[in-house]
Amino acid sequence: MKKMGVAEERKAEVLRKLKELGESIYYALQNRKFPEIYLPSRSVKNIMYDQELRQYVLGPAKVRRSSHNIKQIRTFTQLIWLAFFVKRLIKERKTSTLRDIFYSAQAFNIDFKDQDESDKIITDLESALMKAREDFNVFPEERSAIFGELIIEYTVPGYEGKRLDLTSHPDGVMIGPALTTAEFIDTSAEMVIAIEKGGLFTRFIEEKVHKRFKAILVNTAGQPPRSTRYLLRRLNQELGLPVYIFTDADPWGMHIAMVIISGSANAAHLRDLTTPDAKWAGVWASDINKYRLPHDKLTDIDIKRLHELKMDPRYNSKLWRDEIEIFLRHKKKAEQEAFARYGLTYIVDKYLPEKLEIVKSL
Amino acid sequence: MKKMGVAEERKAEVLRKLKELGESIYYALQNRKFPEIYLPSRSVKNIMYDQELRQYVLGPAKVRRSSHNIKQIRTFTQLIWLAFFVKRLIKERKTSTLRDIFYSAQAFNIDFKDQDESDKIITDLESALMKAREDFNVFPEERSAIFGELIIEYTVPGYEGKRLDLTSHPDGVMIGPALTTAEFIDTSAEMVIAIEKGGLFTRFIEEKVHKRFKAILVNTAGQPPRSTRYLLRRLNQELGLPVYIFTDADPWGMHIAMVIISGSANAAHLRDLTTPDAKWAGVWASDINKYRLPHDKLTDIDIKRLHELKMDPRYNSKLWRDEIEIFLRHKKKAEQEAFARYGLTYIVDKYLPEKLEIVKSL
Repeated sequence: MKKMGVAEERKAEVLRKLKELGESIYYALQNRKFPEIYLPSRSVKNIMYDQELRQYVLGPAKVRRSSHNIKQIRTFTQLIWLAFFVKRLIKERKTSTLRDIFYSAQAFNIDFKDQDESDKIITDLESALMKAREDFNVFPEERSAIFGELIIEYTVPGYEGKRLDLTSHPDGVMIGPALTTAEFIDTSAEMVIAIEKGGLFTRFIEEKVHKRFKAILVNTAGQPPRSTRYLLRRLNQELGLPVYIFTDADPWGMHIAMVIISGSANAAHLRDLTTPDAKWAGVWASDINKYRLPHDKLTDIDIKRLHELKMDPRYNSKLWRDEIEIFLRHKKKAEQEAFARYGLTYIVDKYLPEKLEIVKSL
Repeated sequence: MKKMGVAEERKAEVLRKLKELGESIYYALQNRKFPEIYLPSRSVKNIMYDQELRQYVLGPAKVRRSSHNIKQIRTFTQLIWLAFFVKRLIKERKTSTLRDIFYSAQAFNIDFKDQDESDKIITDLESALMKAREDFNVFPEERSAIFGELIIEYTVPGYEGKRLDLTSHPDGVMIGPALTTAEFIDTSAEMVIAIEKGGLFTRFIEEKVHKRFKAILVNTAGQPPRSTRYLLRRLNQELGLPVYIFTDADPWGMHIAMVIISGSANAAHLRDLTTPDAKWAGVWASDINKYRLPHDKLTDIDIKRLHELKMDPRYNSKLWRDEIEIFLRHKKKAEQEAFARYGLTYIVDKYLPEKLEIVKSL
């Protein structure tokens, strides 16, 4: 028998958890009890930072959803319907979006007054199963991209066993449901470089960063969708590749890197989306002066955001604290593209090797 | 000698036009005259709708940029620098973004006070050459995607002569500089279906619309970037394939279809971005009642927009006028995903074949 791949194993685990959930409902009914479900509480009081996991996690507080409680029967029913619906999605190997779920409910006379309500129930099911919605085939619309010497093998219907070399399309290979669930077969890469901006991702491909630095390139397209964060983690953990993150030099770019490394409070009920060993490789606040980069003044909103980050336990280490201080002292920000001031290839020829040297020694 | 492909021919033409521009400057200098350039005026008075081309075009009015005029010497210099810079981009076969151009200027001590100013000069050069910035290797960051039975051959450095089958990645193949400049080699497709939303694009791939309807699928990702509009035109004109556009049933979805068909006033100085024979295949206002779709009320902004569209010469034909009237009468809008109310595959199994039948006969 063929060994089960990572993607298949995850699906099997979700199905197992869904089955347990269903069985608990049947068991209650058989024993003439009102079925109920316990979910981890997602209230602010129950969200805490775990130093060991280096991410936010939920504490021990639980909330009960009971079919006995007239106020809860609506959300209880919605949750059970959703569990039924995503089980069918997985079995039929179809994918879906948050928006689709909202409309699909109407076919079953399940009432959601708007998408906010259905999105909330999807998060409830995530908490109940401790699995991300991507694991039950609910994907976002946004797509980021990947490029580099990595061969993958698909597991989606119609493509099982087919392979793709991720250098086969020089605009980058889209990260959608098929790529997210593919198995990694072979790579000659020695690192992963995640890049915030599409323009720079294209530049890196043109300048052959994948060959010169033996790197797999990932375009996060701003704050990466969770499927991209999950993919970065897999590249790090399954292939043992270090991950370096390049963003703009501003609080928002910094935070893109931090969410890849340590996750978000919103996803405290989930595991496997963070890459704790990934490194923020710039553009740092200190690079703006060091490289005399064209820059803009920080806005009031930027400064307010930096003060928030200062209070955030994820930012409680030397590099991050120092860079926040430099931002606040100089009140400057700069974009990745600012290096074009020294010619389009400077960032690859000069900045990238210098910075990788520094970051590796951190 | 190998026959020149469409993409290569376009590059050669841009280089020829850049050379003419340069020669006119040298000629003036040699004759001890102040160099000057004439550009078509892009003022509202000079933008008119051309019934034959079925797009907005610029009228005969010209504006002069002269190095003799102290007020114009700044923009004149910026324009000449840009022409020099993009010639180098093309020769070195590098691509760039609007943002890159802004920063690159600083390496040459060319001053742009912000990106708005550099963007304006890029549009000036487009008008001077009557070519889109993509033709001189300045690409946007946004990426849409394509999927279907079409084999392309790359022309970008390092990939010359390599081919890709556009069914090779089931998440869709990204439309970036490499795809935009590729040659079409072979297809078994009989139509092109452009889709506004990423989620539905993935659904269409999963439901094998490319096989069942022999269709090439294009995800426009909202209002498509110009390189995607140009690609749709090429699929229509080079391969002779009809193009059908599926959008949300609201004024914004309608206008996505219209811009693919007839272009925008902003691009009145350009050709080759429109597909006049493409058809808007829904979701129509009339479909909301016909299919009893879940819907929302039109907002005041939606209604204001519909009144604007009514006055727009591009909307001056029966289908469009009727649908605008129905929107205004029923005051309802609906999304493509609303069909999920009848199950996730209803849109492909029922709506799509019915609608294609109707649209083909229009």
